[in-house]
This record gives sequence, structure tokens and C-alpha cells, in this order.
Amino acid sequence: MPTAHVLPQDLEAFCHQAMLRLGVQEDDARLGAQILTMTDTWGVHTHGTRQLRNLLKNFKVNRLDPNERAQIVREGPAWALVDGRNAMPLGTAYRAMELAISKAKANGIGYVGVYNTSHFGAAGYYTNMAAQQQMIGIAMCNTDPQMTAPGGRGKVLGTNPLSYAAPGGDHPAVFLDIATSAAAANKVIRARALGEPIPEGWLVDADGIPTTDPGGFPEAGALMPMAGHKGYGFAVLVEVLCGVLTGASIGKEQASWIPYDDSSVPVNQGQTFIVIDAGAMMPADTFKERMNALIDYIHGSPRARGIDQIYLPGEIEWKKRAAVLERGMTLPSDVVESLRGLAADAGLEFPFALID
Amino acid sequence: MPTAHVLPQDLEAFCHQAMLRLGVQEDDARLGAQILTMTDTWGVHTHGTRQLRNLLKNFKVNRLDPNERAQIVREGPAWALVDGRNAMPLGTAYRAMELAISKAKANGIGYVGVYNTSHFGAAGYYTNMAAQQQMIGIAMCNTDPQMTAPGGRGKVLGTNPLSYAAPGGDHPAVFLDIATSAAAANKVIRARALGEPIPEGWLVDADGIPTTDPGGFPEAGALMPMAGHKGYGFAVLVEVLCGVLTGASIGKEQASWIPYDDSSVPVNQGQTFIVIDAGAMMPADTFKERMNALIDYIHGSPRARGIDQIYLPGEIEWKKRAAVLERGMTLPSDVVESLRGLAADAGLEFPFALID
Repeated sequence: MPTAHVLPQDLEAFCHQAMLRLGVQEDDARLGAQILTMTDTWGVHTHGTRQLRNLLKNFKVNRLDPNERAQIVREGPAWALVDGRNAMPLGTAYRAMELAISKAKANGIGYVGVYNTSHFGAAGYYTNMAAQQQMIGIAMCNTDPQMTAPGGRGKVLGTNPLSYAAPGGDHPAVFLDIATSAAAANKVIRARALGEPIPEGWLVDADGIPTTDPGGFPEAGALMPMAGHKGYGFAVLVEVLCGVLTGASIGKEQASWIPYDDSSVPVNQGQTFIVIDAGAMMPADTFKERMNALIDYIHGSPRARGIDQIYLPGEIEWKKRAAVLERGMTLPSDVVESLRGLAADAGLEFPFALID
Repeated sequence: MPTAHVLPQDLEAFCHQAMLRLGVQEDDARLGAQILTMTDTWGVHTHGTRQLRNLLKNFKVNRLDPNERAQIVREGPAWALVDGRNAMPLGTAYRAMELAISKAKANGIGYVGVYNTSHFGAAGYYTNMAAQQQMIGIAMCNTDPQMTAPGGRGKVLGTNPLSYAAPGGDHPAVFLDIATSAAAANKVIRARALGEPIPEGWLVDADGIPTTDPGGFPEAGALMPMAGHKGYGFAVLVEVLCGVLTGASIGKEQASWIPYDDSSVPVNQGQTFIVIDAGAMMPADTFKERMNALIDYIHGSPRARGIDQIYLPGEIEWKKRAAVLERGMTLPSDVVESLRGLAADAGLEFPFALID
């Protein structure tokens, strides 16, 4: 399976072009290409441009409508509820976070919930939009069930990812973007394909018993939450905010955003964006100095034997991106395969040289 | 070491009385007794009335002042920053959450940060105040360092606990109250006292290498975050919100709230309270129905072999409390020892029969 070496601006331009060819509105295409390419430059290829082809397939089965646009259905000065109207979900999430930022700018804190939407890529893109404005951003979404509850054997809750980002002072933004499961489903599926065992704590089998054998998943069994009841508790919080409180799907009402079965039932994912304006609480310079102090303190803390550096959350991703902006990046073969399929769907030449 | 069987109202009355004798203001004493007794009835004895004696010792060394009262120093319609002024921290946290609730009632969402405060007991008490008002509450605080960062060997961040609560519809409130470390420090210290090994993933030794030997802690080594980089990421978020953004201590600036060394340096802990008003986003009945739907769905999901019930976060605590309200509770010996010391400090008879 070939890989390909690309410059991020070329990858972004290709995705932008492919979306336009497939009927996506100009600004949605621009934003989508930007969001997914940024994610690839962090090294998070599972959630980058690899996902675009599957996302766009939702137009064909009428689960998403490229001509739609999300709308605010109810709002106060500090909050809003948005009907995603099954429009392009990356653009919807971008605008929802912009709205949360503007609410926070005016009120110190802002809250935006979205329903009738679908997969938004990496939550960390949106939280970093807030960090760029010297604000603290939080984003999360409820997803189709892959994970069990403690004591369960079925797929009950999604991996329900959660992200935050905070301005880094003179350093890059601090950010975390995680699933509330111990491991991602695709890690288990990859181990299965390779015939390898998985670590303890990732999976329960069809009887709900923890297993290191990935052979039954995803047909049976379920992912385990990170840190047991703690990850479960966070997944339930995400379900309350994104599912219950927006009017979106709850639990197994939500289908996978990947249209495996050509189902035309909308995903109706829920998403939540919370922004806190640091500038409301203290002068911008003070906040910057204090973030520097926290980061310098952690960087300077005693290292374990054999360790060269202690990283802040997100720091490794920014380091990878800096290298990519200088030298480009090699896309893994699964990303290249998806992008070649996208090129075919859009009637475009695949523009990057393949490396065997 | 004796235990004691108590009725919650008697325990609350005793704590109230002891605080009054030790100079705590009437309303702070009432609130403090209420908060700590509630925590015991959940079965969370580590954070209940056991902590009162040590908390009150802070008055003697002038780290807390029983005559002080927290003050709002800056606010907007949806947020406030509160100077705790080293007043009784349980009362301060209670009033900060009340303030966040009233901000949320008026604005859909409310945010209150507090600095110059100290240990507030179990964060879950405060988040449940919001749930009782049909709102979703979040509370957290940064604590003195006990936990390392990935790749570290020192104590860098506190266990930085985090709680949320959501109304349970026709069920008890759903709530989570956890440390961001894999295990609490006192669990490691108890294993050391018993000469027992601890599970993998709890502790690093003086070199930063994971160990199952608790023998060196707390003098050397440090707790590990829950779920590795994920728990670390959450602990950093708590540090950003509670430490950086309130003006409180950051990292090792914060001393333990227990006055081991008679230090008179204030703890300057930071705390954050966020409340989201479900009633702003949808009619109260709709939210209630949707919470019922989520809870019934999780309760009804397939159980692992040998498991009778799947619990929502917090459900086990409410079940314990219901039993305690009927039959009273047996306080563990360490709680009894602390309460006997408190009685002596306050010049009171210890009012409960000891069970040997």
C-alpha cells in the first residue's frame, strides 16, 4: 500500500477542490479543508483528511445536505442552541465555536449546543480556535455506541470525545483531545487484522468479560472506558450535554456517521462548545504571564530517568506541525487510499506522487 | 480502634456544635456540618466529617480566619471572581456555587472562580446543589502537588479533583466526583502501612519508574495520573481554570491544607464552579423526560455475566445514603478517631457510643 509525501497547503487545496466538485458550498469547502489538514499536520491522521471521503458519502444517501446551513433556534446573550440541519458538519462546528467565542467575548462565558449534525473531525481544532483568541475552549460530541458501561457487555455509549485548549502564553496552546474510552475502536480493529493481542483494559467480550483478544470486535463486545468508572462518568456527562440537552440522539439512537449501510436516517449527533474569556477575569498580560509560569513550572519539573523532556498536553502535536510546515508530511497508506478514492469520486486526478 | 454507629442528624448536630465552640460563624458552621455529613452518608468517609478537625486547625495557625467572609472582587452578568479571604472554605464554596446557580438562572450559564480559599471537602456536594435546581453543575479545585506528569518523577500537580452533577429526572441526580490521579494518596499510604503491594499504574518511584511498592511514598515518588496522558491533561485543565485564571496558587506554590508544619502561609487554593441551566435550552418537562430516557436506556443495557445492575454515576452513593437515612451508619475508626479529637479540641463530650 503506497504512502505519499505532501505539503499541507497542497493537501488543503486538493480537499477544497474535491469538495467543490462534490457540491459543497464554497465556505464550507474552505473550512473543511482547513480543519482536516490542520489535524493531519498534528500527526492525528485518524481524524484528518482520511475522513473526508466517508463524510461526503453522506450527501449521496441524503443524510447530509450540501446546500443546507445550520441555524440558531434559540439563544440568550451567553448561550445558543443551533439546529445543524444536516449541513456540512465541519462548517457547522466551526461557526458554532465562533458563536461561542463571540458570546464569551461579550459575557465572560459562552455556551453553544448543536443538534442535527454529524462528525466534526477532531474536537481539538475547535477548542484551539478559542485559544487563538486568548480564551479557554471546551468541545465535545456524543457518538454512536462503541463503549460499554462498567458491569455491561453491550455497546452503550459512544467514545464521546472531549477536548479543551488554553492559550499558551509565549508557548503554543495547551490542548487535549481524547476519547473517553481506553482506546479507539480502530486500534482494536487493527490488532485484529494483524492477529495481535490487545492490552488489558481496552475491551470486553460478548459476555462483558475483559479480554485481550480483539477477534470478536466490532461484531460483539465493546470498548472499555478509560480509567473505569471515571471514563464512564465523563462519557455520561458528554451524553447529557450533547445528547439530552441539545435534543440530539441519545445512545443507540445515533447511527454511525459512516454510511455503511446506505441508511438515510440522519445521524443527529449533538455537540457542545463552551468558551471562557480569560480577559474578563484578569488583564491579558497577567493571564499570559501566569500561563507562562504554569508551563515553565511543568517543563522544569524533575524528569524520570532516561526522559529528556516533559511535554504539556498538545505540545507534541504542535512540534509535529512545525516540522510539517518546514518539510511536508508523509501520509500513511490508509489516508492515501481514502484520498485516492475521494479523487475518483470527485473526478479529479490524484495530485500526489505515490511512494511504494 | 473503635468505630461508632450514628444517625446523620446527630453527626451533623455534633459537627455544627463543635464548629460554634471553635469560633466558626453560625451560617458557616451550619453549612459545613451539612456538607461534610452529606458526604459521609454517600459512603465517602475520606472527605466527610473526618476532615473537619484538620480544617479547623487552620484557624489556630492563622491560615484561615473564622471571622472572615469571601467577597466578589469582579463580575459580569454571567460570571464572577471571588476572593475567598481565607474564610471558612466550605461556606465559601457553598456561596460560590449559589452565585454560579443564580448567574446561570439569569444567563443560561454561570461561571464563578474563587482564590484565597482552602479545602472544600467533596466537590460533588456543590455540583449536586446545581442538580437540585434542575441545572448541570461542574466544580473543581487545584490542590497541592501529589501527582507526576508523564515522563516526570516529582510531584508536579495536585490530584486536582473534578465533579459534575446533572438532574436525574425521576431518578436521583447523576454525579461524578473524582481525582485526576489513578488512585488517591491515602490508598497508597494505607497499603504501605499494611505492607501490601499496590496495583500497577498508581505510583512512580523516586526515579520516575512505575512501581507496585508503596514503601517510598509520600517522601519520594508521586502518584500517576488516571489513564496516563488523559488524566494529566485533565489535571492541567483544572490547574489552568482554578490556578491560573483565578489568581490562586499554581503547582507547588500551594501547600497542603492540612497544617502539618504549623505553617501560617495560606493555601491559596483555587476553585471553579460552572452551571448550565437546562431550563434555558428546553422546557423543564422535556429535559426531565430526556434524562429519564438516558437513564432508563443505560439501566436497560445488556449486563455482563454475573452482574445484576448497571449503575449511573453517583447512583451507588445515593443508594448508600437512602440506607443511612433509614438505619444510620457505622463510621470507620479513622473517622471516629478524628471526631474524638475534634470533641476534645472543642471541649465537648464525644456523644456517640464506641463499638470495639
